[in-house]
Amino acid sequence: MPENFADRLLRAIADKKTPAVIAIDPVYSRLPAEIAEHKDLNDETDSEAALDAVLEYCRHVIHVVAPYVPAVKLNSAFFERYYSEGIEGYYELIQEATEAGLMVIGDVKRGDVGHSAEAYARAHLADSDFVNLPDQIAPDAVTVSGYFGSDGVQPFLALARSAGKGVFVLVRTSNESAGELQDVFASDGRRMYEVMGGLVANWATESGMMGARGYSAVGAVVSSKDAEAARRLRELMPYSLLLVPGYGAQGLTVEQCAPFFKSDGAGAIVAAGRSVIYAYEQTKYLEMYASEWKRCVEQACKDFVADLARVVRVG
Amino acid sequence: MPENFADRLLRAIADKKTPAVIAIDPVYSRLPAEIAEHKDLNDETDSEAALDAVLEYCRHVIHVVAPYVPAVKLNSAFFERYYSEGIEGYYELIQEATEAGLMVIGDVKRGDVGHSAEAYARAHLADSDFVNLPDQIAPDAVTVSGYFGSDGVQPFLALARSAGKGVFVLVRTSNESAGELQDVFASDGRRMYEVMGGLVANWATESGMMGARGYSAVGAVVSSKDAEAARRLRELMPYSLLLVPGYGAQGLTVEQCAPFFKSDGAGAIVAAGRSVIYAYEQTKYLEMYASEWKRCVEQACKDFVADLARVVRVG
Repeated sequence: MPENFADRLLRAIADKKTPAVIAIDPVYSRLPAEIAEHKDLNDETDSEAALDAVLEYCRHVIHVVAPYVPAVKLNSAFFERYYSEGIEGYYELIQEATEAGLMVIGDVKRGDVGHSAEAYARAHLADSDFVNLPDQIAPDAVTVSGYFGSDGVQPFLALARSAGKGVFVLVRTSNESAGELQDVFASDGRRMYEVMGGLVANWATESGMMGARGYSAVGAVVSSKDAEAARRLRELMPYSLLLVPGYGAQGLTVEQCAPFFKSDGAGAIVAAGRSVIYAYEQTKYLEMYASEWKRCVEQACKDFVADLARVVRVG
Repeated sequence: MPENFADRLLRAIADKKTPAVIAIDPVYSRLPAEIAEHKDLNDETDSEAALDAVLEYCRHVIHVVAPYVPAVKLNSAFFERYYSEGIEGYYELIQEATEAGLMVIGDVKRGDVGHSAEAYARAHLADSDFVNLPDQIAPDAVTVSGYFGSDGVQPFLALARSAGKGVFVLVRTSNESAGELQDVFASDGRRMYEVMGGLVANWATESGMMGARGYSAVGAVVSSKDAEAARRLRELMPYSLLLVPGYGAQGLTVEQCAPFFKSDGAGAIVAAGRSVIYAYEQTKYLEMYASEWKRCVEQACKDFVADLARVVRVG
């Protein structure tokens, strides 16, 4: 039996001494000039050239952040945009990040009825079972939609359980209009994200995915600038690791992230994306390192880790 | 400005005289023996051989059903299962179905925060804007998750509006446990799927996507065996075309589909999948056509169209 995902992630957090995670959402138009313009890659309209540049950039970011954080989150949307070759690149980066000692969260947000969810789970969570693709590996965990309820999520859980992988179910998202549905009050006084969180809490304890360190391999994606909401989410899912997006570019501060952690400093990971991976667009870092874009990213990553350490102390 | 998606779909329905749609969810283990075993393709563990067989099967299904129905729905899960090459096959089938005169709904169920949703929209709804991929075409419409609220859906709407494409937002799904979240009562007495449906109704009228025939290019995925729920969903989204899954293998009868249509017989499409595409597994069709699997699929498609015509008369 492979080691439980939650245990693996908690060990990686302890090793790197931070629950900071870097989200890699590459957009061609924001690539460093050095990469976008070298060779013949200065053409966003040429899919091969653009994708080559995007992947080169991502590989650099992976290696720059690898010494500092336990995991990266790759959002498949930005690779799907390059069709099948983008997907090939997505899996290559998973391999690259894994070899760099990082855990990988595939931010795919998939969800469907049972028999379709099973196909998604195989695609996104299982290492390949094809004889001619022996090296094709999948992320350590994926994000999934819980809108379908239990039978849509179970195929992901079944596969994760047997493979030592994890899932993070979307509960309360970080975008402006998240509340239109998620914050609606149910007749029992709970908000809808609490209803969803309640389902996650059940899956976390009842799916046979509890690890040795007190957490389940069934986690949740949660974000909110409201401290009271954050505390409720934390209490509602005591056995789930919470993946908190929204730091930086989306305006979430570390103080707002703090209530997603337990008093011992465990129980959550915080993802920063654009504020780190595009640090070379910010005056602050340009003044320090001018056009050395990788040093800008490295410094922003270290600053993010340090900022988070102000409110959460690991171990 | 390209023609509105809803107008295009309604014309296709009028042409074929049915709102029946075939859902193509290919699973290797259920392929006809003739395809799975011919050449060297009798190896599910060889990804190339398995995918070749799956795609050959899908191409046949597309051509068998093309004379009878206005559209097919391709579920990307079953192609993603073959990684990047599966995705390549998925886009090839979209092209193949389009050339066969079918409209194509990409059942991708994507959804994310705004900037990621924009990447998904480009990947799944925009014909390629890459100079070296001029023939890469996307589906006529896709299914999307509404859980993120307006700013997660807007990028899909914006792209659909400019490209004459459509979206079907997940409102009430067809699986057993759909109700765990979707049927929860909100404090105002509505069920959650009605809250979601209310959002869809706003998007349908406020996104500038109304067609000339009284329907918006913003539709919804809805399914329920409860006639009262079906009527409420129909009334709640008067300008949306409703995509109704669940017929056949999932147990929805045409009588249960009827309330999703308006009294003039318009306003919905009904998708049948496994009951048609795997008809050659059913004694009824085996007795008629033995191992001629394509004739079994053709007959099941015609039977589905006839069954639906008992309750809905087009035009």
